[in-house]
Amino acid sequence: MKYGATRDNVLGLVAVTGAGELIRCGGPWSKNSTGFDLTRLIVGSEGTLALIVEATLRLVPRPPQQATLRALYLDAAAAARAVSRLMRQPQVPAMLEFMDARALGLLRRNGASIPEAGALLMIEADGDGDSLPLALAALGAAAEGDGLISLDVALDGAARDRLWAARRALSPALRTIAPGKINEDVVVPVSRIPELVAGSEALAREFDLPIVCFGHAGNGNLHVNILYHPDRADESRRAGEALPRLFDLVLALGGTLSGEHGIGTAKRDYMPRAFDAPTLAAMRAVKAALDPDGILNPGKVLPPV
Amino acid sequence: MKYGATRDNVLGLVAVTGAGELIRCGGPWSKNSTGFDLTRLIVGSEGTLALIVEATLRLVPRPPQQATLRALYLDAAAAARAVSRLMRQPQVPAMLEFMDARALGLLRRNGASIPEAGALLMIEADGDGDSLPLALAALGAAAEGDGLISLDVALDGAARDRLWAARRALSPALRTIAPGKINEDVVVPVSRIPELVAGSEALAREFDLPIVCFGHAGNGNLHVNILYHPDRADESRRAGEALPRLFDLVLALGGTLSGEHGIGTAKRDYMPRAFDAPTLAAMRAVKAALDPDGILNPGKVLPPV
Repeated sequence: MKYGATRDNVLGLVAVTGAGELIRCGGPWSKNSTGFDLTRLIVGSEGTLALIVEATLRLVPRPPQQATLRALYLDAAAAARAVSRLMRQPQVPAMLEFMDARALGLLRRNGASIPEAGALLMIEADGDGDSLPLALAALGAAAEGDGLISLDVALDGAARDRLWAARRALSPALRTIAPGKINEDVVVPVSRIPELVAGSEALAREFDLPIVCFGHAGNGNLHVNILYHPDRADESRRAGEALPRLFDLVLALGGTLSGEHGIGTAKRDYMPRAFDAPTLAAMRAVKAALDPDGILNPGKVLPPV
Repeated sequence: MKYGATRDNVLGLVAVTGAGELIRCGGPWSKNSTGFDLTRLIVGSEGTLALIVEATLRLVPRPPQQATLRALYLDAAAAARAVSRLMRQPQVPAMLEFMDARALGLLRRNGASIPEAGALLMIEADGDGDSLPLALAALGAAAEGDGLISLDVALDGAARDRLWAARRALSPALRTIAPGKINEDVVVPVSRIPELVAGSEALAREFDLPIVCFGHAGNGNLHVNILYHPDRADESRRAGEALPRLFDLVLALGGTLSGEHGIGTAKRDYMPRAFDAPTLAAMRAVKAALDPDGILNPGKVLPPV
């Protein structure tokens, strides 16, 4: 959350376009108004515009100490209100992770000691011996509010490790519910997180499948996992039918398809739901400009015309 | 320094391309991996790719308190070493401004009370009543080192205002040296600032013109001002001849032409020095993709083929 996504930390690139030309964009500067920003255009283009052969990355000093707050809430709406409060004050959390009730139940069944709650936030602070207590106090104050059940702090390494181990165990633990999952990484404006969680619960009921939501609350970037048994044809079909409904929900909330995984071929055919025809045409024109013969990662990102 | 350039705070755009199409890029999210990043491509393209009609901006809470450190150094090299130390520790300065010896002399002649020094840094810290003293202590410790002459802190509003008023007075005060100026906004890697200042001093001697350097040290983005009398033909000629030599210096230091002002027509013909032919061709191809008839701000940024 505090240090940005990878693309926010790429300052420059050397890349080979589809025309076979080596181009040099950006460089070791954090400010630049010289020509078009081809660096950011190429980052995240999934190899469809140019082949990156060199990258200049921004480095930031790692704060010497970290501590984690675990906040439990009555429901996703209360947790989302806390996310808004956390983002409205100047102490930016290093990490800000959300889990819905089903994710918490899953952790509990897998042995984690987490009280009953409707939603959880993990809020990471960083700093040094002097600044860390202040960051923790500010983040703790912002986490408090209507619907908070409990607020715990993990200061030492072992306690932090236990908290984050639970978070990391979530994705593999989904297999204990069902062996198949469609793991999306949708994005919504932070204020719409409760509607995304409620809408996912409604889809779970409608399609009679478990759906588990967790992820990067500060970015509004949640992993929505639709779980099913691949060897049960009816479940597979229902999972496949739930997916476009999830995307429709996300887009209706003013969100977008992917915050991390990208589009590839799996989500390519949903691109016309996320972008109107002129915007897709502009992307196709940019693709043709840098890869006129369509030889770079063909068929990815943009659906066929 | 701490909050990024404008482009770092633009999350989404609605824009009209040269094809007359309304496109929608990005949105109210800080993380997005859905299609090409047209937002950042259009920001900074100086109206040559699309006409921006709507923008979604990132907001951050303003810290309630600010304080400013004024650090004087023996020379630009000592100041640049301090900039490196400041950027290597986790307390990011809100602002980090540099002035060379000539800029300091100019301020002094205009009544500012600044001791003799070879270079100055203005280092702004922000925070609240608890965190501001910690930020100041960390920034002050990083500012200290070989070649430091003095380190003063302006805590209250009036003292801060005096410091920043001196900084703001610099640009108009240049007129008291000579009525004409070529004000560049070149960028170099932060570690190369001393060589940029020394090289500017060498150009000042060679072309017998005052050159004053000040600006945004944390970004390596310095305003190099070549001063001359426009009504003296010989000075105007020498100023005009010094400019390409400045750009050659900046590019030899691994820098680029502009960090703020952009290219327009004034620096357009220097673009082939900053970019090799394949990179310029890629920019031209992107321009043709979004503005096929070349109707948007024609003649700007990219030199004619």
